[in-house]
Amino acid sequence: MTRRLSLFGATGSVGQSTLDLVRRDGESWQVAALTANSDVAELARLAREFRPDIAVIADETRYADLADALAGTGIEVAAGADALVAASRQPADLVMAAIVGCAGLAPTMAALEAGTPVALANKEALVSAGELMTAASRASGAAILPVDSEHNAIFQCLAGGRIDQVRRIILTASGGPFRTMSAADMARVTPAQAVAHPNWSMGAKISVDSATMMNKGLELIEAHHLFPVGLDRIEILVHPQSVIHSLVEYIDCSTLAQLGSPDMRIPIASALAWPDRMATPCAPLDLATIARLDFEAPDETRFPATALCRAAIAEGGARPAQLNAANEVAVAAFLAGRISFPAIVDTVNRVLDAAAPAAPTGLQDIFSVDASSRAAAQQFVEQFEHA
Amino acid sequence: MTRRLSLFGATGSVGQSTLDLVRRDGESWQVAALTANSDVAELARLAREFRPDIAVIADETRYADLADALAGTGIEVAAGADALVAASRQPADLVMAAIVGCAGLAPTMAALEAGTPVALANKEALVSAGELMTAASRASGAAILPVDSEHNAIFQCLAGGRIDQVRRIILTASGGPFRTMSAADMARVTPAQAVAHPNWSMGAKISVDSATMMNKGLELIEAHHLFPVGLDRIEILVHPQSVIHSLVEYIDCSTLAQLGSPDMRIPIASALAWPDRMATPCAPLDLATIARLDFEAPDETRFPATALCRAAIAEGGARPAQLNAANEVAVAAFLAGRISFPAIVDTVNRVLDAAAPAAPTGLQDIFSVDASSRAAAQQFVEQFEHA
Repeated sequence: MTRRLSLFGATGSVGQSTLDLVRRDGESWQVAALTANSDVAELARLAREFRPDIAVIADETRYADLADALAGTGIEVAAGADALVAASRQPADLVMAAIVGCAGLAPTMAALEAGTPVALANKEALVSAGELMTAASRASGAAILPVDSEHNAIFQCLAGGRIDQVRRIILTASGGPFRTMSAADMARVTPAQAVAHPNWSMGAKISVDSATMMNKGLELIEAHHLFPVGLDRIEILVHPQSVIHSLVEYIDCSTLAQLGSPDMRIPIASALAWPDRMATPCAPLDLATIARLDFEAPDETRFPATALCRAAIAEGGARPAQLNAANEVAVAAFLAGRISFPAIVDTVNRVLDAAAPAAPTGLQDIFSVDASSRAAAQQFVEQFEHA
Repeated sequence: MTRRLSLFGATGSVGQSTLDLVRRDGESWQVAALTANSDVAELARLAREFRPDIAVIADETRYADLADALAGTGIEVAAGADALVAASRQPADLVMAAIVGCAGLAPTMAALEAGTPVALANKEALVSAGELMTAASRASGAAILPVDSEHNAIFQCLAGGRIDQVRRIILTASGGPFRTMSAADMARVTPAQAVAHPNWSMGAKISVDSATMMNKGLELIEAHHLFPVGLDRIEILVHPQSVIHSLVEYIDCSTLAQLGSPDMRIPIASALAWPDRMATPCAPLDLATIARLDFEAPDETRFPATALCRAAIAEGGARPAQLNAANEVAVAAFLAGRISFPAIVDTVNRVLDAAAPAAPTGLQDIFSVDASSRAAAQQFVEQFEHA
């Protein structure tokens, strides 16, 4: 049976990995829509290969370029934010939401509202707009299939079980490159040190988030939305090798875990094929060669970001959106050499202390909180810079 | 909803653990039958507590004692092998088959034939009569729910999946107390050394099987019957801490694992409550305190038993029953100080070499292979003893 897939964020890392799997299993898939932010050349190349009904470029100024590049192919061409939302309402069996940042919110929401299951690789969707997204999913019955390796692991461990019989969800964390570093030394780390993630090859932003453990805090927020077991039942466990991607403990004290090589195609394949499975070209796990797995409790003194995230989601409302926006600005400032590593979390803290916006009732509120929190974060960054 | 449970082997370790769970969740259970081998006093005590419809003592000479002990309770009393089989045909929602040894075969088979799901803790059932048992399960549609921690782990990891999408089943093994010992030193180990299992508190026979790794070989045979993925897809991985009880790798290279504290009540609860879950008083797993898990490939030169078992199940027919019977005699001889530790596997090898009985077509054939293999093993034991 051929399934129709719409892929939002086709030219990014998750998008390319998704298409790698679709390419290997071409008979099972028909691509409905492909979108990209601004990389017209790559989007056009992919569109020519995968023959979607429609190709959308988010950057409206690139419309003509895309139209030229796909002239004569019969593929419909569109551009801009509204076109992304329209494309997400196209009939499809699955939407892969792999746009990075708040730009992914509207099309993801529209897909859920249209009742299309969403394979969700867009962190911001759940961190900033988790309540709206899960409400849309419940209302339409469209499943959210998490693509993040940790959440996908939890999702798999829940497949044969009942969420009301979960005792604990244990989110594993590599601990990042500074896991064993003193707080004093962390004050002096450089961007180059922070982006060197021990296990996964990732972008600079998420590598820094892994170094501060903000990434794990954001995942805690996501997990809270995806798996409603109660915040006090979601724990973080440091596991430097990142082989166990997360665990679910049931009321009988039986714990299920999902393990795998650090290859995003594994959770992507899980989401694409769910509730079935599809073959991947990934390396099978070789535990005898890996030889050893380590575990330790997280240190929230040296890494305060996870506690900050836990407090933000406990408070709810606009807090997670504020936190996420402030963190993006602070990480960019750290990567630009403007602020120190500890100042990332300090910036987030100050933004949260400075204002408490009302709970968002729609995406427009989220965008407004996002904008005001970014502006506030920029001010605190400047203060740190000149301190 | 109250479920009717018949418990075969109530006074043994698995039986007592089962009743501990039933006791804590009394409203969910009604005990249909309780049986024991010869411990009348304990069986009578349990019968007075759990009020089964019938209590059966396998040892016919103890009938009068049991009848006296339960006089006036209204509990029906019976004795002997035929009474065990009759009791297993009583209407029940679940039979817990926890009789040790070949004595458990007939009642387990009868329960499956009657269409009653069986929680299977009787190794011999699958090792010696795996084809007959699984055929009976398929014919009646009665599920076999494995209670062995490894097989229960695999069963749980398969719960949300499809067996035809399994790439590998990985059976973990502690490696036993002699995991790092040289072959030369193993020639001199004493029974006391062999029964000191590093992780589980178990009986002498199974502890010695763990030390030779014959236990893992027998479990490989069981797994082959329970999970028909093909023998070449079932692997053994040494994992000294026994925290991961086994793993299932799917075609997408996603691996699921079940983990838990070394408490048999966890897999028992899983089988009792399946497809649901029930609370247990077991210790939750604390990976941060455990801190470290190790893995290594098995060494089939120092521990030839697993290869022997793999060959036996590949050949099939009467081979596993022969192997199991010979091993029981050899282990008893080792525990009695009659033969050396390496002579256990040597004895099994010689029994397999000496005769190749026809494939069994019924339990009677299994019993006959069992008897002849025991006799042959006794002869080889005597030869080793006087060598």
